[in-house]
Amino acid sequence: MRPSGRTPEQPRDVRITRNFTRHAEGSVLVEFGDTKVICTASVENKVPPFLRGEGKGWITAEYGMLPRSTGSRMGREAARGKQGGRTVEIQRLIGRSLRAAVDMKALGEHTITIDCDVIQADGGTRTASITGGCVALVDALNYLVAEGRLKKSPLKRMISAISVGIYKGTPVADLDYPEDSEADTDLNVIMTDEGGFIEIQGTAEGAPFQQDELDAMLALARNASDTLFAVQKEALEG
Amino acid sequence: MRPSGRTPEQPRDVRITRNFTRHAEGSVLVEFGDTKVICTASVENKVPPFLRGEGKGWITAEYGMLPRSTGSRMGREAARGKQGGRTVEIQRLIGRSLRAAVDMKALGEHTITIDCDVIQADGGTRTASITGGCVALVDALNYLVAEGRLKKSPLKRMISAISVGIYKGTPVADLDYPEDSEADTDLNVIMTDEGGFIEIQGTAEGAPFQQDELDAMLALARNASDTLFAVQKEALEG
Amino acid sequence: MRPSGRTPEQPRDVRITRNFTRHAEGSVLVEFGDTKVICTASVENKVPPFLRGEGKGWITAEYGMLPRSTGSRMGREAARGKQGGRTVEIQRLIGRSLRAAVDMKALGEHTITIDCDVIQADGGTRTASITGGCVALVDALNYLVAEGRLKKSPLKRMISAISVGIYKGTPVADLDYPEDSEADTDLNVIMTDEGGFIEIQGTAEGAPFQQDELDAMLALARNASDTLFAVQKEALEG
Amino acid sequence: MRPSGRTPEQPRDVRITRNFTRHAEGSVLVEFGDTKVICTASVENKVPPFLRGEGKGWITAEYGMLPRSTGSRMGREAARGKQGGRTVEIQRLIGRSLRAAVDMKALGEHTITIDCDVIQADGGTRTASITGGCVALVDALNYLVAEGRLKKSPLKRMISAISVGIYKGTPVADLDYPEDSEADTDLNVIMTDEGGFIEIQGTAEGAPFQQDELDAMLALARNASDTLFAVQKEALEG
Amino acid sequence: MRPSGRTPEQPRDVRITRNFTRHAEGSVLVEFGDTKVICTASVENKVPPFLRGEGKGWITAEYGMLPRSTGSRMGREAARGKQGGRTVEIQRLIGRSLRAAVDMKALGEHTITIDCDVIQADGGTRTASITGGCVALVDALNYLVAEGRLKKSPLKRMISAISVGIYKGTPVADLDYPEDSEADTDLNVIMTDEGGFIEIQGTAEGAPFQQDELDAMLALARNASDTLFAVQKEALEG
Amino acid sequence: MRPSGRTPEQPRDVRITRNFTRHAEGSVLVEFGDTKVICTASVENKVPPFLRGEGKGWITAEYGMLPRSTGSRMGREAARGKQGGRTVEIQRLIGRSLRAAVDMKALGEHTITIDCDVIQADGGTRTASITGGCVALVDALNYLVAEGRLKKSPLKRMISAISVGIYKGTPVADLDYPEDSEADTDLNVIMTDEGGFIEIQGTAEGAPFQQDELDAMLALARNASDTLFAVQKEALEG
Repeated sequence: MRPSGRTPEQPRDVRITRNFTRHAEGSVLVEFGDTKVICTASVENKVPPFLRGEGKGWITAEYGMLPRSTGSRMGREAARGKQGGRTVEIQRLIGRSLRAAVDMKALGEHTITIDCDVIQADGGTRTASITGGCVALVDALNYLVAEGRLKKSPLKRMISAISVGIYKGTPVADLDYPEDSEADTDLNVIMTDEGGFIEIQGTAEGAPFQQDELDAMLALARNASDTLFAVQKEALEG
Repeated sequence: MRPSGRTPEQPRDVRITRNFTRHAEGSVLVEFGDTKVICTASVENKVPPFLRGEGKGWITAEYGMLPRSTGSRMGREAARGKQGGRTVEIQRLIGRSLRAAVDMKALGEHTITIDCDVIQADGGTRTASITGGCVALVDALNYLVAEGRLKKSPLKRMISAISVGIYKGTPVADLDYPEDSEADTDLNVIMTDEGGFIEIQGTAEGAPFQQDELDAMLALARNASDTLFAVQKEALEG
Repeated sequence: MRPSGRTPEQPRDVRITRNFTRHAEGSVLVEFGDTKVICTASVENKVPPFLRGEGKGWITAEYGMLPRSTGSRMGREAARGKQGGRTVEIQRLIGRSLRAAVDMKALGEHTITIDCDVIQADGGTRTASITGGCVALVDALNYLVAEGRLKKSPLKRMISAISVGIYKGTPVADLDYPEDSEADTDLNVIMTDEGGFIEIQGTAEGAPFQQDELDAMLALARNASDTLFAVQKEALEG
Repeated sequence: MRPSGRTPEQPRDVRITRNFTRHAEGSVLVEFGDTKVICTASVENKVPPFLRGEGKGWITAEYGMLPRSTGSRMGREAARGKQGGRTVEIQRLIGRSLRAAVDMKALGEHTITIDCDVIQADGGTRTASITGGCVALVDALNYLVAEGRLKKSPLKRMISAISVGIYKGTPVADLDYPEDSEADTDLNVIMTDEGGFIEIQGTAEGAPFQQDELDAMLALARNASDTLFAVQKEALEG
Repeated sequence: MRPSGRTPEQPRDVRITRNFTRHAEGSVLVEFGDTKVICTASVENKVPPFLRGEGKGWITAEYGMLPRSTGSRMGREAARGKQGGRTVEIQRLIGRSLRAAVDMKALGEHTITIDCDVIQADGGTRTASITGGCVALVDALNYLVAEGRLKKSPLKRMISAISVGIYKGTPVADLDYPEDSEADTDLNVIMTDEGGFIEIQGTAEGAPFQQDELDAMLALARNASDTLFAVQKEALEG
Repeated sequence: MRPSGRTPEQPRDVRITRNFTRHAEGSVLVEFGDTKVICTASVENKVPPFLRGEGKGWITAEYGMLPRSTGSRMGREAARGKQGGRTVEIQRLIGRSLRAAVDMKALGEHTITIDCDVIQADGGTRTASITGGCVALVDALNYLVAEGRLKKSPLKRMISAISVGIYKGTPVADLDYPEDSEADTDLNVIMTDEGGFIEIQGTAEGAPFQQDELDAMLALARNASDTLFAVQKEALEG
């Protein structure tokens, strides 16, 4: 029933490659099927103005798509002179989600910026960004420990994200682009590895959705998240 | 327990004043307690480029805050030369939510722009904007009928929005600013008057939230929405 | 002869409502007939770079129109990414005019920003902004005294503004939109309550104007200003 | 008494050099003493969107200062990415003033853009721009006649501009920079060669000004304008 | 003598991987040692305004660096709201160079945009972009033939680019970042596979360079270009 | 054979007028035939952030064209809100070239900004800017000595720039606009008065160029530079 032949609860093949580029303190290529995102984590010894003198750190994110990561070429945001609304919305979500992974007090006065750049898009770029970005973040935290700038990693928990939706009347996990563009409902679920919710964002694209559909989608998300946490763990141990 | 003395399930006094200003096809002042937003609906005889020739209409929204609608003055976005990320996120939410109220085919080649301008902020400006904006939208649709440009109103359903959250461990409805700035979880629920969900957006500000907390918040939202639909109805019949 | 039935020397009903919103140190709704502007005065404990260390204060103004304050919707300046020429011109005029009301030395190192936001426009928005803005400014100065941050108010004089023009050959006071769009000459006169001029700006929209017409318009302005000062005084004493 | 040794009613030496650069349809170097402005008039066979199909022409102006036209270097507006408020205010004034010189109906569907670029500033750049710009405009109108695109010049009248002010208690004409920076009042008067006013803009920089001071300044302006019209005439006949 | 241990005339390992991403008509990963650039070629059925109706095509290029492609994080140009001067300079060079490869008349009314996005930088990003971009361009031209939109490829010649410089007194080919940041002279040479020059850009970073040094550098460039054309050829035949 | 009747090796009449405007520390009008550029040098007692505390100075350049310096009016960059790619490319070239003239250590913590504003364009505006800018720079350096802020001028050498090209198959020096728009190759050569190269930039506009053509063009450039250095010298001694 799904264009890809997957079962409703089956996420795409998820691959996480660490040390994908060499300059960043954390650098990951994350693939959710044909969706490919480079996530880097960059450490700076300073915090934004609103945190100065508070003894706390900060984590923020930026998101971009290469102009031809998509089926038809999108104008380059740098050339147009501003980031679009969708970009702003996504990078704020990534930042909020990954801040939940870290004890800011223990991080001390460091800023870590997670850059998520989509090189190939096939649906789910924001969930891939969060899932891969968390691994890059862990590497950057470990770098701070290895450099002796922190005694131990301020990581509190792992974070992953998955999209679920109602496609042709059936709840399905990890929508790819052909599904996403036809789905009635699209729900992004950001979870912790202890099973709590960090953020849920669900939108009825067509008909309103009901409580039982929400419950079914959340169950799928919970299930798929287990897979994502396993892939993250394997990558970090590999 | 709540700073305002309200019970957990009790929303603030909600007031909707139609015909608040005189030029727009729909013009509403919506008040959720001390939060006050002017919502206008403006009709144009054209559609954006991506819809040209499709025989369908479009509904979009813009959001702004007067610089001193808040406790300390915010820089004016027009003077800074760009809309901030929060503004972009909110106006996209308002637009998506209100598009769910209308049959775009039946609207024909008209664009309706909902402008939501906050003149006084005390938490919940986005939910007030959607709830008041829907009334302004209905007035604009009725204007199209009264002018003979549409045979009947393309309204499919009423839409309202409410914030719910976990404040000091207890789920509460319609957070005001003192609650919002301390709440562990903030969930915005956009519903239809038939009881379906149009959008849900929940964020753990502190600890992750659990399924049972989500369920409790959604129950509060469902309950508070009934009040909002009653206020909308009274305003439109008044 | 005037569309509104007023006599040539008769200004519209002018109303000034103080404490219109609750956060600002001064907050006024000013109405010149159907023209309605929210004027807030915001105090900050700092001065712009060019005044640092001079022991003097600063007063500045910003102006905006809600997109649908006018007969047809204007694009939102924040969304277009810049303030238009008319906006810039008007906010510079408001700032210059209100600086004349205050002894900057006695104000000390404070900046007061007057935000004038038009919620409904029917001609004369800049004169209403100055007239209402002066009352908001007085409230902000009194706030500084009440807070013990100044010994006494640095107010030197009250300022008001009125438009006069040549409409169908006759000099008239306080043009509304139907008159303004057809007037041959439009003159904005900013005066002190001692009868001096702070600024005069007169433009021939059609035929050039002559010295005797200028004299007649200035006499009307002087007369109407008396009314404005009385309304300001009543509002401040009320 | 004046720093330059001029009498109160004496304007600076005014020189107008036509055909200063070779590409524009009108190109003038105007000098008011040490203030030097290049004014070019450029003709285009089109009108702005709001005039399309009306059979009328349009005249507009842009103003700029070379970064080192002034005593200390100003940031280049093109590099800062926006025109400052003063620039916007001045170019709107130049445009309004010069539109009064031409019969737009007779101009037909042409746009003439007057570019005024200050290469050396010593006070009065806006009045020099208008006075010189009018000569460039006349040349551009005559070019349209010479090219056979208009039967006769749509020029209705000549326009010139002069600043007058109260300097150390005395009304003086054509303020240079040392006077301008100390004057109590600064009044720009834009006149026609028939003696009517096109625009007057007077600002009290220090004390408010009184009716008798205004009258004295206007008399000086009227007188100085005669000189300007004579210089324009001589340049055009030369 | 070279930090990398290469001989003066030895370029880095150059690798070109076609079909690197799946959406673009041409998509190449080009590697000059540790410098890695994704080059995509996107075809559109239209030309820029200045070419409309001329029956000719257009080729243009855009360049960007991922924020952490470099040793320390650079601000994202999309977030800063403008492309920097270096970016503009490089993308104009890429566009000019690749236009020399194609017969614009034979291309017909198509635009091909070459996007060069640096994912890892180690010197020579512009030369890698041109060399890899030419292969992506060839694929896009062949796509037009395969789709039946062109009878035969309008490719006139292959283009490649190499940097040469004077490092510690010796001319060397293909500078990497450690060399580039210390070199006295940096010369970028864009050549055709017939041995002609398309563009040369040489800058003395320290001492001026002499004719004999220029000759030596050009000889190295000519030599290294042969290698590049061989790698391009192999990639296209592979 | 050349439209201007010049011999292939003959540059246009070059004139350099010092003290062209009166505020800048160096102010030059440079004319290459009908190309006229105002070059000013402005001294500031500070350096950009990246040089703070290094005890070194900085030289930078900005370039602009008056809107009607060209045959048809170009949009004003300040009004469009950004500098175009060509402007950015040229001003970076001017800055790089003139930095080669000065010992930055000996300049101490001063910044000198060279503003090059084209008032009339006929080809070769960048080479005229560099050649004239160098004279303005020398005047600014001498000003620092005359003011006692430097013991002696940190000038290391004079810099000039000339364009050479292949026009109708023949190498020619100092292309004017009619030649430039038809030339096959355009090469800008920036030289020192000791005969070394500071920068060379050559572009094949039509056919690729060959080594022997490059050699011929460089010989022409070397020859023309002698003339430019003589004109600079005469201006500085005059």
